[in-house]
Amino acid sequence: MINLCLFGAGRIGSIHANNVARHSEVNIAYIVDAYQPAAEELAKKYDAKVVSVEEALADPELHGVIIASSTNTHANLMELSAKAGKAIFCEKPVDLSVERVRECLAIVNESKVVCSIGFNRRYDPQFNALKESLDAGKVGNLEMLTITSRDPSPPPVEYIEVSGGLFRDMMIHDFDLARWLLGEEPVEVFATASCQVDPAIGEAGDVDTALVTLKTASGKLCQISNSRRAVYGYDQRIEAFGSQGMAQVGNQLESQVTVTGEKGSTAAKPQFFFLERYEAAYRLELDNFVACIRDGVQPVASGIDGLQSLLLAEAALESSRTGKAVNL
Amino acid sequence: MINLCLFGAGRIGSIHANNVARHSEVNIAYIVDAYQPAAEELAKKYDAKVVSVEEALADPELHGVIIASSTNTHANLMELSAKAGKAIFCEKPVDLSVERVRECLAIVNESKVVCSIGFNRRYDPQFNALKESLDAGKVGNLEMLTITSRDPSPPPVEYIEVSGGLFRDMMIHDFDLARWLLGEEPVEVFATASCQVDPAIGEAGDVDTALVTLKTASGKLCQISNSRRAVYGYDQRIEAFGSQGMAQVGNQLESQVTVTGEKGSTAAKPQFFFLERYEAAYRLELDNFVACIRDGVQPVASGIDGLQSLLLAEAALESSRTGKAVNL
Amino acid sequence: MINLCLFGAGRIGSIHANNVARHSEVNIAYIVDAYQPAAEELAKKYDAKVVSVEEALADPELHGVIIASSTNTHANLMELSAKAGKAIFCEKPVDLSVERVRECLAIVNESKVVCSIGFNRRYDPQFNALKESLDAGKVGNLEMLTITSRDPSPPPVEYIEVSGGLFRDMMIHDFDLARWLLGEEPVEVFATASCQVDPAIGEAGDVDTALVTLKTASGKLCQISNSRRAVYGYDQRIEAFGSQGMAQVGNQLESQVTVTGEKGSTAAKPQFFFLERYEAAYRLELDNFVACIRDGVQPVASGIDGLQSLLLAEAALESSRTGKAVNL
Amino acid sequence: MINLCLFGAGRIGSIHANNVARHSEVNIAYIVDAYQPAAEELAKKYDAKVVSVEEALADPELHGVIIASSTNTHANLMELSAKAGKAIFCEKPVDLSVERVRECLAIVNESKVVCSIGFNRRYDPQFNALKESLDAGKVGNLEMLTITSRDPSPPPVEYIEVSGGLFRDMMIHDFDLARWLLGEEPVEVFATASCQVDPAIGEAGDVDTALVTLKTASGKLCQISNSRRAVYGYDQRIEAFGSQGMAQVGNQLESQVTVTGEKGSTAAKPQFFFLERYEAAYRLELDNFVACIRDGVQPVASGIDGLQSLLLAEAALESSRTGKAVNL
Repeated sequence: MINLCLFGAGRIGSIHANNVARHSEVNIAYIVDAYQPAAEELAKKYDAKVVSVEEALADPELHGVIIASSTNTHANLMELSAKAGKAIFCEKPVDLSVERVRECLAIVNESKVVCSIGFNRRYDPQFNALKESLDAGKVGNLEMLTITSRDPSPPPVEYIEVSGGLFRDMMIHDFDLARWLLGEEPVEVFATASCQVDPAIGEAGDVDTALVTLKTASGKLCQISNSRRAVYGYDQRIEAFGSQGMAQVGNQLESQVTVTGEKGSTAAKPQFFFLERYEAAYRLELDNFVACIRDGVQPVASGIDGLQSLLLAEAALESSRTGKAVNL
Repeated sequence: MINLCLFGAGRIGSIHANNVARHSEVNIAYIVDAYQPAAEELAKKYDAKVVSVEEALADPELHGVIIASSTNTHANLMELSAKAGKAIFCEKPVDLSVERVRECLAIVNESKVVCSIGFNRRYDPQFNALKESLDAGKVGNLEMLTITSRDPSPPPVEYIEVSGGLFRDMMIHDFDLARWLLGEEPVEVFATASCQVDPAIGEAGDVDTALVTLKTASGKLCQISNSRRAVYGYDQRIEAFGSQGMAQVGNQLESQVTVTGEKGSTAAKPQFFFLERYEAAYRLELDNFVACIRDGVQPVASGIDGLQSLLLAEAALESSRTGKAVNL
Repeated sequence: MINLCLFGAGRIGSIHANNVARHSEVNIAYIVDAYQPAAEELAKKYDAKVVSVEEALADPELHGVIIASSTNTHANLMELSAKAGKAIFCEKPVDLSVERVRECLAIVNESKVVCSIGFNRRYDPQFNALKESLDAGKVGNLEMLTITSRDPSPPPVEYIEVSGGLFRDMMIHDFDLARWLLGEEPVEVFATASCQVDPAIGEAGDVDTALVTLKTASGKLCQISNSRRAVYGYDQRIEAFGSQGMAQVGNQLESQVTVTGEKGSTAAKPQFFFLERYEAAYRLELDNFVACIRDGVQPVASGIDGLQSLLLAEAALESSRTGKAVNL
Repeated sequence: MINLCLFGAGRIGSIHANNVARHSEVNIAYIVDAYQPAAEELAKKYDAKVVSVEEALADPELHGVIIASSTNTHANLMELSAKAGKAIFCEKPVDLSVERVRECLAIVNESKVVCSIGFNRRYDPQFNALKESLDAGKVGNLEMLTITSRDPSPPPVEYIEVSGGLFRDMMIHDFDLARWLLGEEPVEVFATASCQVDPAIGEAGDVDTALVTLKTASGKLCQISNSRRAVYGYDQRIEAFGSQGMAQVGNQLESQVTVTGEKGSTAAKPQFFFLERYEAAYRLELDNFVACIRDGVQPVASGIDGLQSLLLAEAALESSRTGKAVNL
């Protein structure tokens, strides 16, 4: 049995705790949360102990940690865990500061512990089916990638204020997807954005609607579009175009029922949000983390992926402010 | 914790055992199987005891049974369980003989124990979404129902020989679906069938391709088509047509990826077979059985549903032999 | 230039006149209609002469006739045209009486004139694309055929009263489609029907909703469903199932636009009715008739097809009344 | 009867000639083409006279001209026709030089003749159905537009060399579409492009794959993607996203047949190229031109639209070379 400590007992922490409970090879031994009642409640449900960071990491029987606490604690917890020799699974982003990420990864790399970053899209069965099609040459040479990502509704402005902004908080997933699917690093980033959903987002210094174009050294092109609000649910689609054709992944719908009446044929909406859409991905993330600890396999996404995506987010932010493409 | 005994440690028994293991309120205490090694293996995996029927039913701490053994043992195990006061979940069919089903249900009904019959379609989220549409009046008055059910490939002829034939073994699910969705009992049954997939099926006295039409007292019509072989996977679709429109449930596909190339746009196949397609349904069957035991709710499908569907199967068999519609 | 006489200046006659006008090799010389003003109006539009049947058929420069008058005049006009040596295009049905059809076809056959019957489905590009798939072996051996045919709304009861009833008037198209696609004559017909759309249809002795099953000598099965009312438009679909897969033709929609909002994704309705859905088919019917006259090619559907479909309609009617399958 | 002169007897000229021939209110009186045999052949087919530009324009009975000759003749013919008081329908682009377009439009505007520019997308029934959805508020406030336009295969390099390049030759249609659908002029243009289809295109100084982002003054965003090669046919799709949902127009397929077999469900390809895809649009262009001449209605797209789209193309070209967004 692999023993883990869960840092963070909020929404995303609960998902991980639940997946651990359903997994036969892994166990939540400890839960740490600055807000004690949340930690206590989750600990009770899953038969874990509420402890301090130090107590948890001091246990020689502890194999790894799941870091699902607030973003500003990630890098510090990663460093402490690395120094204690514990395998790390950390939610994205590592940190909002590129410098801080570099520092942290230097320490983590030195420690040689497992370091898996929670880019959930990479574990999604649909996107993996797409990647298999691409790897199998179904579209020939990939030439253009189109990623559509729209949230059902914006988070509270309080969250937006500490989120690092749309590019670092939301589009970072799409930057990672783009890197993963293109199989090449983008060398040029252009972004344009606006605030169309809620003026309060603009007042907080952020945008809610954005388009980004990426170009790789070999000339492959990628376009990403984000909106903080789609009234019809979570819109997560990818189109890959190449010399031999096109592969597309549509949304997962709430049901396969279509009703046809006087006004047309109505199919179900996309699944509401990430908890529904990426339910399988969260389970597969844990499976991969277990395999990393148990069998020494490589994480599907590691620290360097966290850094590279953040660099793309930084470049996009700069481009959106200067009106110039940023070269990497 | 609700304690159950599992009768039958084969493929379908394993599914139920696995679902019980993932359910926090229920436990497999005993496993009974004529083939001891299968029982032992499953018992070891789920920490249950291998016992005899009598031993299991004698335990006052046992709340219910899951009957997933071969068809010819169902009625007997139901009777013994009922007499022992245990809640019953039994895979369809209760028995291949109408008379035997009636006898058995008389005993079960007298005992007043929970009696849930495993018509998995009734638990399927897709078909429930369809039923909700119908109940919400989305198609107005239901007038016509079309049920398509095709297996990916036929079972071994040895199974066919003891299966009771296509109408009792395969189409019985569709008869139950039709009754459930029509909301009325069919009063007229016509069937026509042939052997097109494998002559060995015909030699065993069965058919592999069949069309049935049903009519209710109010004039609602239903058509059911079955084939024992669909090279593209498990084909499970329903179309409901009414005074205000039409509702359709398509197949669940293996992925949402579509590849478009020189030969057209290719979407994924339907999920392979019942284990994949009705995975959620098997979990929800167990949830319902637990709710029946714990809260006294009614089973979604009970003994009378087992009997009525068998009567429709008998009528279809007779019609396919005489060329006449059978009135019920 | 091929000169034609048009019998019947009503709705369907106008379609044919319009198609002739757009065709560079053919010309409407004469128009005959019992209702003179209709004939005059159409004649003026297309620069034709209004004459009597006798006058038209007496013209040695006349090459053929298009019979689009009321059903009870078809057989008589076919006989007169055949005796006058004119090529015949006649709307279905030849007549509502099997005996009368046989008489008429005997005379037509003796005359050796071209005889094309207006089974418009056979000219439809969609259904031809399906047939090409079947002929190319895309589904292997055809085993099961499902034909769905629903009109947007029922005709007036006055029409129903003289129509010959649903089987002879509406489903006759589907019987012809079935014969054409099965490539074998059905030998068993079963029908069940009811009156669910409008009680006035039942009072007129007809049905408005019907299911038919056909079986061929080799065991191929076919199911046909008809309704006189579909609030969402003209529903014309075919599914062909075989040893290597399934081919389906969906409806032609009013547009390719899909709108996704809070209630789901809404696609356009099917095209409203036969004038829209079979617009291309009517043009291709004329092309074929011209080729028959000009090049001696065989009509896509001829007199024998009119007779065979009527025999299936008769059998279905009998079956729906007796509850027994009718063997042919 | 409206008399027209056709300048240009090539492929696109033939389409216009054929549509005129099928139109009851309009007639090709003259055909002018530098390559006499082409003019003669078309003139013979449609019963027109082959004349010089001067002869045609001198005829007081001539109402208008269709300019479908090579791009470098457009502006000159427009000026001559305008001075002769003839209504003008001219294929896009007016000219490849912004200055020349301005000069030409000044003369045309002064003459007050009808001036319709052949932006065929604006006449397409699918895109009009989309526009009606937007105008009806089906997606609320439009916030983002995604235009996908891919040709089945690149034109010969000789054509590319005189075409003005991808932005002026191909994407100009999408710029016009964007302006038409956004209902606002773009104020910021960014483009990135590469040569992935054929190195010869790059050697000719052009690109074959391009992404453009547009932004309007109110913050609406638009992304356009172009490729000179899609092995599956002509890919012409639009997605409009707004505060209340999303509207999408898919491709028109070669047929509605889907074949499902061991490898999945295969639907037909998109229609091959513009002749098939925009067949209806070409007819409706002519209808609009006739209505402009006959009834004085406004052209759907006029000279100013030709200029504005060219300005966007110029801006895109500059941006693709400088890596900076161009502000208009």
